[in-house]
Amino acid sequence: MITGRFIAFEGGEGAGKSTQARLLADALSQRGVEAVLTREPGGTPGAEAIRALLLDAGVAHDGQGWNPRAEALLFAAARSDHVERLIRPALAAGKWVICDRFVDSSRAYQGGGGGLDEAAIRTLHDIGSGGLLPDLTVLVTVSPAAAEQRLRLRDQGRSDAIGSRPTAYHMRVADAFVRFAAQEPERFAVIDGDGDAHAVHKRVLDAIEPLL
Amino acid sequence: MITGRFIAFEGGEGAGKSTQARLLADALSQRGVEAVLTREPGGTPGAEAIRALLLDAGVAHDGQGWNPRAEALLFAAARSDHVERLIRPALAAGKWVICDRFVDSSRAYQGGGGGLDEAAIRTLHDIGSGGLLPDLTVLVTVSPAAAEQRLRLRDQGRSDAIGSRPTAYHMRVADAFVRFAAQEPERFAVIDGDGDAHAVHKRVLDAIEPLL
Repeated sequence: MITGRFIAFEGGEGAGKSTQARLLADALSQRGVEAVLTREPGGTPGAEAIRALLLDAGVAHDGQGWNPRAEALLFAAARSDHVERLIRPALAAGKWVICDRFVDSSRAYQGGGGGLDEAAIRTLHDIGSGGLLPDLTVLVTVSPAAAEQRLRLRDQGRSDAIGSRPTAYHMRVADAFVRFAAQEPERFAVIDGDGDAHAVHKRVLDAIEPLL
Repeated sequence: MITGRFIAFEGGEGAGKSTQARLLADALSQRGVEAVLTREPGGTPGAEAIRALLLDAGVAHDGQGWNPRAEALLFAAARSDHVERLIRPALAAGKWVICDRFVDSSRAYQGGGGGLDEAAIRTLHDIGSGGLLPDLTVLVTVSPAAAEQRLRLRDQGRSDAIGSRPTAYHMRVADAFVRFAAQEPERFAVIDGDGDAHAVHKRVLDAIEPLL
């Protein structure tokens, strides 16, 4: 049975993940590879409805937000829907799936950043999505200064319930991603995301090449 | 430290749980016991927002609904919020909490009815809510004929995404509840819910008496 390849992009806020995911999906299509570009949380109608609950600071308790355990459960629920209705069917049909964030974001944000037991995050992923992992996870790293500048340009001061958490939280998230890549070097490609988007895209293509 | 008592009402659709929960909360108040009446899924603003996603058949995929794993994760997320923001603080303040459905509903509906591994439901509850269990769970049982008549009167033909599932599903749910009560007789009081609401209420009070 031929199945497609599953590529996830990971990194902190402002790393340029979404841009790189789109550039890769475009490049694959130009080579005649059928590629589905999607994102988390979201990607299906059900998961997008959960995304709205997660990222809208106003929904839960006048801006107090979700406790880290409820947040992890909501992410796992959205992922379960996304995997079942979009990712697995696309892979089974031989398509490539390019996903902007996947389970390593839950591990880094609710685990590393939020202080929830990382084993619990994996357990939720096992229960919700059969533990599906990407064939390759592209971790895009940038200097804090570059990330801050991109966020200023992109968001013009706006930020969602997670993006607006304190710097110390986001530093724990960044540390967690680097740790995951060191733990599973065969599943991760760490890409320097500083500089021009097309220069970064070339680095991503080099990392993907062995899968083509 | 004095803490309140936590009483959950469980049973299938049309068993009269909500009525009995309200009658018990009223009776406790009349005896000078501070009692909080709440329900699941829901009970807090965040959990009520998740409830809307769970019970609105239209939200997820044109009525196809959530897969059983996503559904279990959403229930566990709502429960985590409810336990953290309402139930634990109320118990710590010495109040009684009377809850219309709790984790045994997840075990019966997603586990028994939906075919999900029951151990997985308990794991989700451990992660989301520290495995909190009621001091007493009142299982209200009724004959299928009585339940059907009550639902017809109450819903006038309307039904939510879970209530409208096939009879075989609801029979598996009812069997699961009876099994749970047999497994943990010290945590369950099985109450015959057939007949007049005030007659049933007297049976509930007899079961609660040892806790007062």
